[in-house]
Amino acid sequence: MNKSEKEENSSLKISHQIRVRFSEVDSLHIVWHGHYIKYFEEGREAFGRAFELTYLDAKAHGYATPIVKTVLEHHLPLRYGEVATVETTYVNSRAAKLMFTYSITNEKGKIVCTGKTTQVFTNFEANDMALNLPEFYRNWKEKHGLLHD
Amino acid sequence: MNKSEKEENSSLKISHQIRVRFSEVDSLHIVWHGHYIKYFEEGREAFGRAFELTYLDAKAHGYATPIVKTVLEHHLPLRYGEVATVETTYVNSRAAKLMFTYSITNEKGKIVCTGKTTQVFTNFEANDMALNLPEFYRNWKEKHGLLHD
Amino acid sequence: MNKSEKEENSSLKISHQIRVRFSEVDSLHIVWHGHYIKYFEEGREAFGRAFELTYLDAKAHGYATPIVKTVLEHHLPLRYGEVATVETTYVNSRAAKLMFTYSITNEKGKIVCTGKTTQVFTNFEANDMALNLPEFYRNWKEKHGLLHD
Amino acid sequence: MNKSEKEENSSLKISHQIRVRFSEVDSLHIVWHGHYIKYFEEGREAFGRAFELTYLDAKAHGYATPIVKTVLEHHLPLRYGEVATVETTYVNSRAAKLMFTYSITNEKGKIVCTGKTTQVFTNFEANDMALNLPEFYRNWKEKHGLLHD
Repeated sequence: MNKSEKEENSSLKISHQIRVRFSEVDSLHIVWHGHYIKYFEEGREAFGRAFELTYLDAKAHGYATPIVKTVLEHHLPLRYGEVATVETTYVNSRAAKLMFTYSITNEKGKIVCTGKTTQVFTNFEANDMALNLPEFYRNWKEKHGLLHD
Repeated sequence: MNKSEKEENSSLKISHQIRVRFSEVDSLHIVWHGHYIKYFEEGREAFGRAFELTYLDAKAHGYATPIVKTVLEHHLPLRYGEVATVETTYVNSRAAKLMFTYSITNEKGKIVCTGKTTQVFTNFEANDMALNLPEFYRNWKEKHGLLHD
Repeated sequence: MNKSEKEENSSLKISHQIRVRFSEVDSLHIVWHGHYIKYFEEGREAFGRAFELTYLDAKAHGYATPIVKTVLEHHLPLRYGEVATVETTYVNSRAAKLMFTYSITNEKGKIVCTGKTTQVFTNFEANDMALNLPEFYRNWKEKHGLLHD
Repeated sequence: MNKSEKEENSSLKISHQIRVRFSEVDSLHIVWHGHYIKYFEEGREAFGRAFELTYLDAKAHGYATPIVKTVLEHHLPLRYGEVATVETTYVNSRAAKLMFTYSITNEKGKIVCTGKTTQVFTNFEANDMALNLPEFYRNWKEKHGLLHD
Protein backbone atom coordinates (compact mmCIF):
# COMPACT_ATOMS: atom_id res chain seq x y z
CA MET A 1 0.00 0.00 0.00
CA ASN A 2 1.56 3.27 -1.07
CA LYS A 3 1.29 6.60 0.67
CA SER A 4 -1.76 7.73 -1.26
CA GLU A 5 -3.72 4.70 -0.12
CA LYS A 6 -2.89 5.00 3.55
CA GLU A 7 -6.02 4.81 5.65
CA GLU A 8 -6.51 5.63 9.29
CA ASN A 9 -9.46 5.94 11.63
CA SER A 10 -10.09 9.61 12.37
CA SER A 11 -11.39 11.02 15.62
CA LEU A 12 -14.70 11.80 13.92
CA LYS A 13 -17.19 9.27 15.19
CA ILE A 14 -20.77 9.06 16.30
CA SER A 15 -22.78 6.63 18.42
CA HIS A 16 -26.32 5.72 17.43
CA GLN A 17 -28.77 3.41 19.16
CA ILE A 18 -30.91 0.88 17.36
CA ARG A 19 -33.56 -1.43 18.78
CA VAL A 20 -33.90 -4.89 17.25
CA ARG A 21 -37.31 -5.30 15.58
CA PHE A 22 -39.33 -8.50 15.60
CA SER A 23 -39.18 -8.60 11.80
CA GLU A 24 -35.37 -8.59 11.89
CA VAL A 25 -35.05 -11.82 13.89
CA ASP A 26 -34.79 -15.10 12.00
CA SER A 27 -35.88 -18.62 12.82
CA LEU A 28 -32.75 -19.10 14.97
CA HIS A 29 -34.10 -16.27 17.18
CA ILE A 30 -31.23 -13.96 16.24
CA VAL A 31 -30.94 -10.98 13.92
CA TRP A 32 -30.57 -12.21 10.33
CA HIS A 33 -27.03 -11.35 9.21
CA GLY A 34 -28.17 -9.22 6.28
CA HIS A 35 -29.91 -6.69 8.53
CA TYR A 36 -26.58 -5.47 9.88
CA ILE A 37 -26.08 -3.61 6.57
CA LYS A 38 -29.14 -1.52 7.52
CA TYR A 39 -27.65 -0.91 10.97
CA PHE A 40 -24.42 0.26 9.33
CA GLU A 41 -26.48 2.57 7.13
CA GLU A 42 -28.32 3.93 10.17
CA GLY A 43 -24.96 4.65 11.78
CA ARG A 44 -23.64 6.32 8.62
CA GLU A 45 -26.75 8.48 8.33
CA ALA A 46 -26.42 9.53 11.98
CA PHE A 47 -22.81 10.46 11.20
CA GLY A 48 -23.94 12.45 8.19
CA ARG A 49 -26.52 14.39 10.21
CA ALA A 50 -24.01 15.12 12.97
CA PHE A 51 -21.17 16.22 10.68
CA GLU A 52 -23.16 17.60 7.73
CA LEU A 53 -22.19 14.98 5.21
CA THR A 54 -25.43 13.29 4.21
CA TYR A 55 -26.60 11.74 0.99
CA LEU A 56 -28.59 14.94 0.40
CA ASP A 57 -25.53 17.17 0.98
CA ALA A 58 -23.62 15.21 -1.69
CA LYS A 59 -26.62 15.32 -4.02
CA ALA A 60 -26.90 19.10 -3.63
CA HIS A 61 -23.38 19.29 -5.07
CA GLY A 62 -24.18 16.97 -7.95
CA TYR A 63 -22.71 13.77 -6.54
CA ALA A 64 -24.02 10.36 -5.63
CA THR A 65 -21.96 8.24 -3.24
CA PRO A 66 -22.58 4.59 -4.15
CA ILE A 67 -21.24 1.84 -1.92
CA VAL A 68 -18.56 -0.15 -3.76
CA LYS A 69 -17.48 -2.48 -0.94
CA THR A 70 -18.86 -3.73 2.36
CA VAL A 71 -17.23 -6.06 4.87
CA LEU A 72 -19.19 -7.46 7.83
CA GLU A 73 -17.84 -9.63 10.63
CA HIS A 74 -20.18 -11.20 13.16
CA HIS A 75 -18.96 -11.93 16.68
CA LEU A 76 -22.10 -12.39 18.77
CA PRO A 77 -25.82 -12.56 18.00
CA LEU A 78 -28.43 -9.91 18.80
CA ARG A 79 -31.93 -10.93 19.86
CA TYR A 80 -35.40 -9.39 19.66
CA GLY A 81 -35.85 -6.31 21.82
CA GLU A 82 -32.14 -5.75 22.47
CA VAL A 83 -30.90 -2.18 22.16
CA ALA A 84 -27.51 -1.99 20.46
CA THR A 85 -25.11 0.86 19.82
CA VAL A 86 -23.60 1.47 16.39
CA GLU A 87 -20.35 3.44 16.54
CA THR A 88 -19.48 4.85 13.12
CA THR A 89 -15.96 6.18 12.55
CA TYR A 90 -14.74 8.16 9.56
CA VAL A 91 -11.65 6.63 7.94
CA ASN A 92 -9.32 9.21 6.47
CA SER A 93 -7.21 8.72 3.34
CA ARG A 94 -6.05 10.76 0.34
CA ALA A 95 -8.33 8.89 -2.02
CA ALA A 96 -11.57 10.26 -3.49
CA LYS A 97 -13.48 7.83 -1.30
CA LEU A 98 -15.74 7.90 1.69
CA MET A 99 -14.86 5.15 4.15
CA PHE A 100 -16.34 4.25 7.52
CA THR A 101 -15.71 1.54 10.06
CA TYR A 102 -18.50 0.28 12.29
CA SER A 103 -18.58 -1.36 15.67
CA ILE A 104 -21.90 -2.56 17.05
CA THR A 105 -22.06 -3.37 20.77
CA ASN A 106 -24.83 -4.88 22.85
CA GLU A 107 -26.19 -3.56 26.16
CA LYS A 108 -23.38 -5.28 28.05
CA GLY A 109 -20.80 -3.47 25.93
CA LYS A 110 -19.75 -6.64 24.10
CA ILE A 111 -18.89 -6.34 20.41
CA VAL A 112 -21.54 -7.94 18.24
CA CYS A 113 -20.54 -6.94 14.73
CA THR A 114 -17.78 -4.93 13.08
CA GLY A 115 -17.36 -3.83 9.51
CA LYS A 116 -16.35 -1.30 6.93
CA THR A 117 -17.93 0.39 3.92
CA THR A 118 -16.29 2.17 0.98
CA GLN A 119 -18.11 4.69 -1.19
CA VAL A 120 -16.97 6.54 -4.29
CA PHE A 121 -18.22 9.82 -5.73
CA THR A 122 -20.05 9.69 -9.04
CA ASN A 123 -21.30 12.62 -11.04
CA PHE A 124 -25.10 12.53 -10.76
CA GLU A 125 -25.63 13.28 -14.44
CA ALA A 126 -22.78 11.62 -16.27
CA ASN A 127 -22.42 8.74 -13.81
CA ASP A 128 -18.63 9.11 -14.03
CA MET A 129 -16.56 8.25 -11.01
CA ALA A 130 -14.62 11.18 -9.57
CA LEU A 131 -10.88 10.48 -9.44
CA ASN A 132 -10.08 13.59 -7.43
CA LEU A 133 -11.75 14.94 -4.31
CA PRO A 134 -14.96 16.82 -5.23
CA GLU A 135 -14.69 20.42 -4.06
CA PHE A 136 -17.48 20.18 -1.48
CA TYR A 137 -15.78 17.12 0.04
CA ARG A 138 -12.38 18.81 0.03
CA ASN A 139 -13.95 21.75 1.87
CA TRP A 140 -15.62 19.41 4.35
CA LYS A 141 -12.31 17.67 5.07
CA GLU A 142 -10.54 21.00 5.48
CA LYS A 143 -13.16 22.22 7.93
CA HIS A 144 -12.60 19.11 10.04
CA GLY A 145 -8.80 19.22 9.83
CA LEU A 146 -8.67 16.03 7.76
CA LEU A 147 -7.02 17.33 4.61
CA HIS A 148 -3.58 15.97 3.81
CA ASP A 149 -1.13 18.55 2.58
CA MET B 1 -72.17 1.39 -3.67
CA ASN B 2 -73.41 2.98 -6.85
CA LYS B 3 -73.02 1.68 -10.35
CA SER B 4 -69.77 3.49 -11.03
CA GLU B 5 -68.12 1.79 -8.07
CA LYS B 6 -69.13 -1.74 -8.95
CA GLU B 7 -66.14 -4.06 -8.89
CA GLU B 8 -65.83 -7.59 -10.17
CA ASN B 9 -63.04 -10.06 -10.63
CA SER B 10 -62.19 -10.36 -14.32
CA SER B 11 -61.00 -13.47 -16.09
CA LEU B 12 -57.55 -11.91 -16.43
CA LYS B 13 -55.33 -13.68 -13.95
CA ILE B 14 -51.83 -15.07 -13.68
CA SER B 15 -50.14 -17.64 -11.47
CA HIS B 16 -46.63 -17.05 -10.22
CA GLN B 17 -44.44 -19.23 -8.02
CA ILE B 18 -42.38 -17.96 -5.14
CA ARG B 19 -40.00 -19.86 -2.88
CA VAL B 20 -39.80 -18.84 0.78
CA ARG B 21 -36.34 -17.50 1.63
CA PHE B 22 -34.56 -18.10 4.91
CA SER B 23 -34.47 -14.34 5.55
CA GLU B 24 -38.26 -14.16 5.28
CA VAL B 25 -38.93 -16.56 8.16
CA ASP B 26 -39.30 -15.11 11.66
CA SER B 27 -38.53 -16.48 15.10
CA LEU B 28 -41.81 -18.43 15.07
CA HIS B 29 -40.41 -20.33 12.05
CA ILE B 30 -43.04 -18.89 9.73
CA VAL B 31 -42.96 -16.17 7.08
CA TRP B 32 -43.21 -12.77 8.78
CA HIS B 33 -46.60 -11.29 7.87
CA GLY B 34 -45.12 -8.18 6.23
CA HIS B 35 -43.36 -10.20 3.54
CA TYR B 36 -46.68 -11.11 1.92
CA ILE B 37 -46.84 -7.57 0.54
CA LYS B 38 -43.71 -8.44 -1.48
CA TYR B 39 -45.35 -11.66 -2.67
CA PHE B 40 -48.39 -9.64 -3.79
CA GLU B 41 -46.02 -7.31 -5.63
CA GLU B 42 -44.30 -10.25 -7.30
CA GLY B 43 -47.69 -11.50 -8.43
CA ARG B 44 -48.70 -8.06 -9.70
CA GLU B 45 -45.42 -7.71 -11.62
CA ALA B 46 -45.90 -11.15 -13.20
CA PHE B 47 -49.39 -9.99 -14.23
CA GLY B 48 -47.92 -6.81 -15.71
CA ARG B 49 -45.36 -8.74 -17.74
CA ALA B 50 -47.98 -11.19 -19.02
CA PHE B 51 -50.59 -8.57 -19.94
CA GLU B 52 -48.32 -5.62 -20.79
CA LEU B 53 -49.31 -3.41 -17.89
CA THR B 54 -46.15 -2.88 -15.89
CA TYR B 55 -44.88 0.02 -13.84
CA LEU B 56 -42.65 0.90 -16.80
CA ASP B 57 -45.57 0.85 -19.26
CA ALA B 58 -47.43 3.35 -17.07
CA LYS B 59 -44.31 5.45 -16.65
CA ALA B 60 -43.79 5.57 -20.43
CA HIS B 61 -47.20 7.27 -20.63
CA GLY B 62 -46.38 9.74 -17.87
CA TYR B 63 -48.15 8.01 -15.01
CA ALA B 64 -47.15 6.55 -11.69
CA THR B 65 -49.49 4.05 -10.05
CA PRO B 66 -49.08 4.40 -6.27
CA ILE B 67 -50.74 1.92 -3.96
CA VAL B 68 -53.43 3.65 -1.90
CA LYS B 69 -54.84 0.65 -0.06
CA THR B 70 -53.77 -2.89 0.81
CA VAL B 71 -55.71 -5.58 2.64
CA LEU B 72 -54.04 -8.83 3.73
CA GLU B 73 -55.70 -11.80 5.41
CA HIS B 74 -53.66 -14.69 6.74
CA HIS B 75 -55.14 -18.17 6.90
CA LEU B 76 -52.17 -20.53 7.24
CA PRO B 77 -48.44 -20.05 7.76
CA LEU B 78 -45.70 -20.65 5.19
CA ARG B 79 -42.36 -22.11 6.26
CA TYR B 80 -38.77 -21.95 4.97
CA GLY B 81 -38.24 -23.70 1.66
CA GLU B 82 -41.93 -24.00 0.79
CA VAL B 83 -42.90 -23.11 -2.77
CA ALA B 84 -46.16 -21.17 -2.93
CA THR B 85 -48.31 -19.97 -5.81
CA VAL B 86 -49.55 -16.40 -6.03
CA GLU B 87 -52.67 -16.03 -8.19
CA THR B 88 -53.23 -12.40 -9.15
CA THR B 89 -56.60 -11.41 -10.60
CA TYR B 90 -57.48 -8.10 -12.22
CA VAL B 91 -60.56 -6.50 -10.66
CA ASN B 92 -62.60 -4.51 -13.14
CA SER B 93 -64.55 -1.34 -12.35
CA ARG B 94 -65.38 1.99 -13.99
CA ALA B 95 -63.10 3.91 -11.68
CA ALA B 96 -59.69 5.31 -12.64
CA LYS B 97 -58.09 2.68 -10.45
CA LEU B 98 -56.03 -0.42 -10.79
CA MET B 99 -57.24 -3.17 -8.47
CA PHE B 100 -56.04 -6.72 -7.97
CA THR B 101 -57.02 -9.56 -5.68
CA TYR B 102 -54.46 -12.13 -4.59
CA SER B 103 -54.71 -15.71 -3.43
CA ILE B 104 -51.58 -17.48 -2.23
CA THR B 105 -51.71 -21.26 -1.94
CA ASN B 106 -49.19 -23.71 -0.58
CA GLU B 107 -47.95 -26.91 -2.25
CA LYS B 108 -51.00 -28.82 -0.99
CA GLY B 109 -53.30 -26.29 -2.64
CA LYS B 110 -54.45 -24.84 0.68
CA ILE B 111 -55.05 -21.08 0.84
CA VAL B 112 -52.38 -19.36 2.90
CA CYS B 113 -53.08 -15.68 2.34
CA THR B 114 -55.59 -13.57 0.43
CA GLY B 115 -55.71 -9.86 -0.19
CA LYS B 116 -56.37 -6.90 -2.40
CA THR B 117 -54.50 -3.81 -3.55
CA THR B 118 -55.82 -0.55 -4.99
CA GLN B 119 -53.70 1.81 -7.08
CA VAL B 120 -54.52 5.21 -8.52
CA PHE B 121 -52.95 6.99 -11.49
CA THR B 122 -50.95 10.11 -10.78
CA ASN B 123 -49.35 12.40 -13.30
CA PHE B 124 -45.61 11.84 -13.04
CA GLU B 125 -44.78 15.53 -13.22
CA ALA B 126 -47.61 17.32 -11.45
CA ASN B 127 -48.36 14.51 -9.00
CA ASP B 128 -52.08 15.06 -9.59
CA MET B 129 -54.40 12.11 -9.29
CA ALA B 130 -56.20 11.23 -12.51
CA LEU B 131 -59.98 11.27 -12.05
CA ASN B 132 -60.68 9.76 -15.47
CA LEU B 133 -59.12 6.74 -17.14
CA PRO B 134 -55.74 7.69 -18.66
CA GLU B 135 -55.81 7.05 -22.41
CA PHE B 136 -53.22 4.25 -22.36
CA TYR B 137 -55.21 2.46 -19.66
CA ARG B 138 -58.49 2.96 -21.54
CA ASN B 139 -56.83 1.41 -24.61
CA TRP B 140 -55.51 -1.47 -22.54
CA LYS B 141 -58.96 -2.18 -21.13
CA GLU B 142 -60.52 -2.02 -24.57
CA LYS B 143 -57.96 -4.45 -25.96
CA HIS B 144 -58.87 -6.92 -23.23
CA GLY B 145 -62.65 -6.43 -23.53
CA LEU B 146 -62.86 -4.81 -20.10
CA LEU B 147 -64.20 -1.40 -21.04
CA HIS B 148 -67.68 -0.54 -19.78
CA ASP B 149 -69.87 1.23 -22.30
CA MET C 1 -72.41 -6.96 13.77
CA ASN C 2 -73.68 -8.34 17.05
CA LYS C 3 -72.84 -7.16 20.52
CA SER C 4 -69.91 -9.54 20.96
CA GLU C 5 -68.17 -8.12 17.92
CA LYS C 6 -68.49 -4.47 18.84
CA GLU C 7 -65.16 -2.70 18.58
CA GLU C 8 -64.16 0.71 19.84
CA ASN C 9 -60.92 2.64 20.09
CA SER C 10 -59.81 2.75 23.72
CA SER C 11 -57.98 5.60 25.40
CA LEU C 12 -54.84 3.44 25.52
CA LYS C 13 -52.50 4.80 22.89
CA ILE C 14 -48.85 5.54 22.40
CA SER C 15 -46.86 7.78 20.06
CA HIS C 16 -43.60 6.57 18.59
CA GLN C 17 -41.21 8.37 16.25
CA ILE C 18 -39.58 6.74 13.25
CA ARG C 19 -37.05 8.20 10.84
CA VAL C 20 -37.26 7.18 7.19
CA ARG C 21 -34.15 5.24 6.13
CA PHE C 22 -32.49 5.52 2.74
CA SER C 23 -33.12 1.82 2.12
CA GLU C 24 -36.87 2.32 2.62
CA VAL C 25 -37.28 4.81 -0.22
CA ASP C 26 -38.12 3.47 -3.68
CA SER C 27 -37.33 4.71 -7.16
CA LEU C 28 -40.20 7.22 -6.94
CA HIS C 29 -38.29 8.81 -4.00
CA ILE C 30 -41.00 7.85 -1.53
CA VAL C 31 -41.24 5.15 1.12
CA TRP C 32 -42.19 1.86 -0.54
CA HIS C 33 -45.71 0.99 0.59
CA GLY C 34 -44.74 -2.32 2.14
CA HIS C 35 -42.46 -0.68 4.71
CA TYR C 36 -45.47 0.81 6.52
CA ILE C 37 -46.17 -2.66 7.93
CA LYS C 38 -42.82 -2.38 9.75
CA TYR C 39 -43.78 1.09 11.01
CA PHE C 40 -47.05 -0.37 12.34
CA GLU C 41 -45.04 -3.11 14.05
CA GLU C 42 -42.71 -0.51 15.58
CA GLY C 43 -45.75 1.33 16.92
CA ARG C 44 -47.27 -1.90 18.27
CA GLU C 45 -44.00 -2.83 19.98
CA ALA C 46 -43.76 0.63 21.56
CA PHE C 47 -47.31 0.12 22.81
CA GLY C 48 -46.36 -3.28 24.21
CA ARG C 49 -43.37 -1.87 26.07
CA ALA C 50 -45.42 1.02 27.49
CA PHE C 51 -48.40 -1.11 28.60
CA GLU C 52 -46.64 -4.42 29.30
CA LEU C 53 -48.18 -6.40 26.50
CA THR C 54 -45.30 -7.47 24.30
CA TYR C 55 -44.71 -10.53 22.18
CA LEU C 56 -42.47 -11.81 24.99
CA ASP C 57 -45.17 -11.25 27.64
CA ALA C 58 -47.58 -13.35 25.59
CA LYS C 59 -44.91 -15.99 24.98
CA ALA C 60 -44.19 -16.21 28.72
CA HIS C 61 -47.83 -17.29 29.16
CA GLY C 62 -47.63 -19.86 26.38
CA TYR C 63 -49.24 -17.82 23.61
CA ALA C 64 -48.21 -16.55 20.23
CA THR C 65 -50.18 -13.66 18.72
CA PRO C 66 -50.06 -14.07 14.94
CA ILE C 67 -51.40 -11.31 12.71
CA VAL C 68 -54.48 -12.53 10.84
CA LYS C 69 -55.45 -9.31 9.09
CA THR C 70 -53.81 -6.01 8.12
CA VAL C 71 -55.37 -3.01 6.40
CA LEU C 72 -53.22 -0.11 5.18
CA GLU C 73 -54.43 3.12 3.61
CA HIS C 74 -51.99 5.61 2.14
CA HIS C 75 -52.84 9.30 2.07
CA LEU C 76 -49.53 11.08 1.50
CA PRO C 77 -45.98 9.95 0.76
CA LEU C 78 -43.01 10.05 3.15
CA ARG C 79 -39.54 10.88 1.87
CA TYR C 80 -35.97 10.07 2.92
CA GLY C 81 -34.94 11.68 6.18
CA GLU C 82 -38.45 12.63 7.29
CA VAL C 83 -39.33 11.91 10.90
CA ALA C 84 -42.86 10.59 11.27
CA THR C 85 -45.00 9.77 14.29
CA VAL C 86 -46.86 6.48 14.61
CA GLU C 87 -49.84 6.68 16.97
CA THR C 88 -50.97 3.19 17.98
CA THR C 89 -54.37 2.82 19.65
CA TYR C 90 -55.73 -0.30 21.34
CA VAL C 91 -59.14 -1.32 19.98
CA ASN C 92 -61.34 -2.93 22.60
CA SER C 93 -63.86 -5.69 21.97
CA ARG C 94 -65.15 -8.82 23.68
CA ALA C 95 -63.39 -11.09 21.22
CA ALA C 96 -60.24 -13.10 21.96
CA LYS C 97 -58.35 -10.79 19.67
CA LEU C 98 -55.73 -8.09 19.85
CA MET C 99 -56.60 -5.17 17.60
CA PHE C 100 -54.82 -1.88 17.00
CA THR C 101 -55.43 1.09 14.77
CA TYR C 102 -52.51 3.17 13.50
CA SER C 103 -52.21 6.74 12.35
CA ILE C 104 -48.88 7.93 10.95
CA THR C 105 -48.36 11.68 10.64
CA ASN C 106 -45.52 13.65 9.11
CA GLU C 107 -43.64 16.56 10.68
CA LYS C 108 -46.37 18.99 9.62
CA GLY C 109 -48.97 16.90 11.41
CA LYS C 110 -50.58 15.69 8.18
CA ILE C 111 -51.85 12.11 8.08
CA VAL C 112 -49.66 9.94 5.88
CA CYS C 113 -50.97 6.44 6.48
CA THR C 114 -53.70 4.82 8.58
CA GLY C 115 -54.44 1.19 9.22
CA LYS C 116 -55.47 -1.62 11.48
CA THR C 117 -54.10 -5.00 12.51
CA THR C 118 -55.90 -7.97 14.06
CA GLN C 119 -54.09 -10.69 16.00
CA VAL C 120 -55.39 -13.89 17.53
CA PHE C 121 -53.99 -15.94 20.41
CA THR C 122 -52.62 -19.36 19.59
CA ASN C 123 -51.32 -21.91 22.02
CA PHE C 124 -47.55 -22.03 21.51
CA GLU C 125 -47.38 -25.80 21.67
CA ALA C 126 -50.59 -27.06 20.10
CA ASN C 127 -50.97 -24.15 17.67
CA ASP C 128 -54.69 -24.03 18.50
CA MET C 129 -56.46 -20.70 18.34
CA ALA C 130 -57.88 -19.53 21.65
CA LEU C 131 -61.62 -18.91 21.43
CA ASN C 132 -61.83 -17.31 24.88
CA LEU C 133 -59.66 -14.64 26.43
CA PRO C 134 -56.41 -16.16 27.74
CA GLU C 135 -56.14 -15.54 31.47
CA PHE C 136 -53.10 -13.25 31.25
CA TYR C 137 -54.91 -11.12 28.67
CA ARG C 138 -58.09 -11.02 30.76
CA ASN C 139 -56.00 -9.83 33.70
CA TRP C 140 -54.31 -7.23 31.54
CA LYS C 141 -57.67 -5.88 30.35
CA GLU C 142 -59.02 -5.81 33.89
CA LYS C 143 -55.99 -3.88 35.11
CA HIS C 144 -56.62 -1.27 32.43
CA GLY C 145 -60.39 -1.09 32.97
CA LEU C 146 -61.10 -2.63 29.57
CA LEU C 147 -62.97 -5.74 30.61
CA HIS C 148 -66.60 -5.96 29.58
CA ASP C 149 -68.93 -7.32 32.23
CA MET D 1 -1.49 -18.38 5.78
CA ASN D 2 -0.44 -21.87 6.75
CA LYS D 3 -1.36 -25.06 4.97
CA SER D 4 -4.46 -25.69 7.06
CA GLU D 5 -5.94 -22.37 6.03
CA LYS D 6 -5.41 -22.78 2.31
CA GLU D 7 -8.57 -22.05 0.39
CA GLU D 8 -9.42 -22.75 -3.22
CA ASN D 9 -12.51 -22.52 -5.38
CA SER D 10 -13.81 -26.02 -6.07
CA SER D 11 -15.53 -27.16 -9.23
CA LEU D 12 -18.82 -27.37 -7.32
CA LYS D 13 -20.90 -24.43 -8.44
CA ILE D 14 -24.46 -23.58 -9.32
CA SER D 15 -26.14 -20.84 -11.34
CA HIS D 16 -29.39 -19.32 -10.13
CA GLN D 17 -31.51 -16.59 -11.72
CA ILE D 18 -33.06 -13.74 -9.81
CA ARG D 19 -35.33 -10.98 -11.06
CA VAL D 20 -34.97 -7.52 -9.53
CA ARG D 21 -38.14 -6.53 -7.66
CA PHE D 22 -39.55 -3.01 -7.57
CA SER D 23 -39.16 -2.94 -3.80
CA GLU D 24 -35.42 -3.64 -4.11
CA VAL D 25 -34.65 -0.53 -6.15
CA ASP D 26 -33.70 2.66 -4.29
CA SER D 27 -34.20 6.33 -5.07
CA LEU D 28 -31.17 6.24 -7.40
CA HIS D 29 -33.13 3.70 -9.52
CA ILE D 30 -30.66 0.93 -8.74
CA VAL D 31 -30.76 -2.08 -6.43
CA TRP D 32 -29.96 -0.95 -2.88
CA HIS D 33 -26.57 -2.43 -1.97
CA GLY D 34 -27.91 -4.35 1.04
CA HIS D 35 -30.19 -6.51 -1.09
CA TYR D 36 -27.21 -8.30 -2.62
CA ILE D 37 -26.84 -10.22 0.65
CA LYS D 38 -30.27 -11.74 -0.10
CA TYR D 39 -29.14 -12.58 -3.63
CA PHE D 40 -26.07 -14.33 -2.19
CA GLU D 41 -28.37 -16.24 0.15
CA GLU D 42 -30.60 -17.24 -2.77
CA GLY D 43 -27.53 -18.52 -4.58
CA ARG D 44 -26.33 -20.41 -1.50
CA GLU D 45 -29.75 -21.99 -1.01
CA ALA D 46 -29.83 -23.05 -4.67
CA PHE D 47 -26.39 -24.62 -4.11
CA GLY D 48 -27.69 -26.40 -1.02
CA ARG D 49 -30.67 -27.85 -2.87
CA ALA D 50 -28.50 -29.00 -5.78
CA PHE D 51 -25.75 -30.59 -3.66
CA GLU D 52 -27.79 -31.63 -0.59
CA LEU D 53 -26.22 -29.21 1.85
CA THR D 54 -29.05 -26.99 3.04
CA TYR D 55 -29.74 -25.26 6.33
CA LEU D 56 -32.22 -28.07 7.06
CA ASP D 57 -29.64 -30.80 6.30
CA ALA D 58 -27.26 -29.23 8.82
CA LYS D 59 -30.08 -28.81 11.34
CA ALA D 60 -31.04 -32.48 10.99
CA HIS D 61 -27.52 -33.30 12.21
CA GLY D 62 -27.73 -30.89 15.13
CA TYR D 63 -25.81 -28.00 13.61
CA ALA D 64 -26.55 -24.39 12.77
CA THR D 65 -24.31 -22.66 10.24
CA PRO D 66 -24.22 -18.97 11.17
CA ILE D 67 -22.54 -16.49 8.85
CA VAL D 68 -19.46 -15.01 10.51
CA LYS D 69 -18.16 -12.89 7.64
CA THR D 70 -19.48 -11.39 4.41
CA VAL D 71 -17.62 -9.39 1.77
CA LEU D 72 -19.48 -7.66 -1.05
CA GLU D 73 -17.94 -5.73 -3.95
CA HIS D 74 -20.12 -3.76 -6.34
CA HIS D 75 -19.00 -3.25 -9.92
CA LEU D 76 -22.14 -2.21 -11.83
CA PRO D 77 -25.70 -1.40 -10.83
CA LEU D 78 -28.79 -3.54 -11.44
CA ARG D 79 -32.12 -1.91 -12.31
CA TYR D 80 -35.79 -2.82 -11.87
CA GLY D 81 -36.90 -5.75 -14.00
CA GLU D 82 -33.40 -6.96 -14.87
CA VAL D 83 -32.79 -10.68 -14.61
CA ALA D 84 -29.40 -11.49 -13.12
CA THR D 85 -27.50 -14.72 -12.61
CA VAL D 86 -25.91 -15.61 -9.28
CA GLU D 87 -23.07 -18.11 -9.61
CA THR D 88 -22.25 -19.68 -6.25
CA THR D 89 -19.00 -21.60 -5.90
CA TYR D 90 -17.97 -23.80 -2.98
CA VAL D 91 -14.56 -22.84 -1.56
CA ASN D 92 -12.65 -25.79 -0.20
CA SER D 93 -10.29 -25.70 2.77
CA ARG D 94 -9.31 -27.92 5.72
CA ALA D 95 -11.10 -25.68 8.21
CA ALA D 96 -14.42 -26.48 9.87
CA LYS D 97 -16.01 -23.75 7.79
CA LEU D 98 -18.42 -23.39 4.95
CA MET D 99 -17.22 -20.83 2.42
CA PHE D 100 -18.73 -19.66 -0.85
CA THR D 101 -17.78 -17.10 -3.45
CA TYR D 102 -20.44 -15.37 -5.50
CA SER D 103 -20.44 -13.72 -8.89
CA ILE D 104 -23.56 -11.95 -10.07
CA THR D 105 -23.80 -11.09 -13.77
CA ASN D 106 -26.40 -9.10 -15.68
CA GLU D 107 -28.16 -10.14 -18.90
CA LYS D 108 -25.21 -8.94 -20.97
CA GLY D 109 -22.87 -11.19 -18.99
CA LYS D 110 -21.16 -8.26 -17.26
CA ILE D 111 -20.15 -8.73 -13.62
CA VAL D 112 -22.34 -6.69 -11.31
CA CYS D 113 -21.32 -7.88 -7.86
CA THR D 114 -18.87 -10.35 -6.37
CA GLY D 115 -18.42 -11.53 -2.82
CA LYS D 116 -17.74 -14.22 -0.29
CA THR D 117 -19.40 -15.61 2.82
CA THR D 118 -17.92 -17.66 5.65
CA GLN D 119 -20.03 -19.83 7.94
CA VAL D 120 -19.05 -21.88 10.97
CA PHE D 121 -20.75 -24.89 12.50
CA THR D 122 -22.33 -24.46 15.91
CA ASN D 123 -23.96 -27.12 18.00
CA PHE D 124 -27.68 -26.37 17.96
CA GLU D 125 -28.13 -27.04 21.65
CA ALA D 126 -24.95 -25.88 23.30
CA ASN D 127 -24.21 -23.10 20.81
CA ASP D 128 -20.55 -24.18 20.81
CA MET D 129 -18.53 -23.67 17.66
CA ALA D 130 -17.23 -26.88 16.12
CA LEU D 131 -13.44 -26.85 15.77
CA ASN D 132 -13.33 -30.05 13.72
CA LEU D 133 -15.39 -31.06 10.72
CA PRO D 134 -18.81 -32.34 11.83
CA GLU D 135 -19.26 -35.93 10.67
CA PHE D 136 -22.10 -35.19 8.25
CA TYR D 137 -20.00 -32.48 6.64
CA ARG D 138 -16.95 -34.74 6.45
CA ASN D 139 -19.11 -37.34 4.71
CA TRP D 140 -20.48 -34.73 2.34
CA LYS D 141 -16.97 -33.60 1.42
CA GLU D 142 -15.83 -37.19 0.90
CA LYS D 143 -18.77 -37.91 -1.36
CA HIS D 144 -17.80 -34.95 -3.52
CA GLY D 145 -14.07 -35.72 -3.54
CA LEU D 146 -13.26 -32.62 -1.50
CA LEU D 147 -11.70 -34.20 1.56
CA HIS D 148 -8.03 -33.45 2.14
CA ASP D 149 -5.99 -36.42 3.23
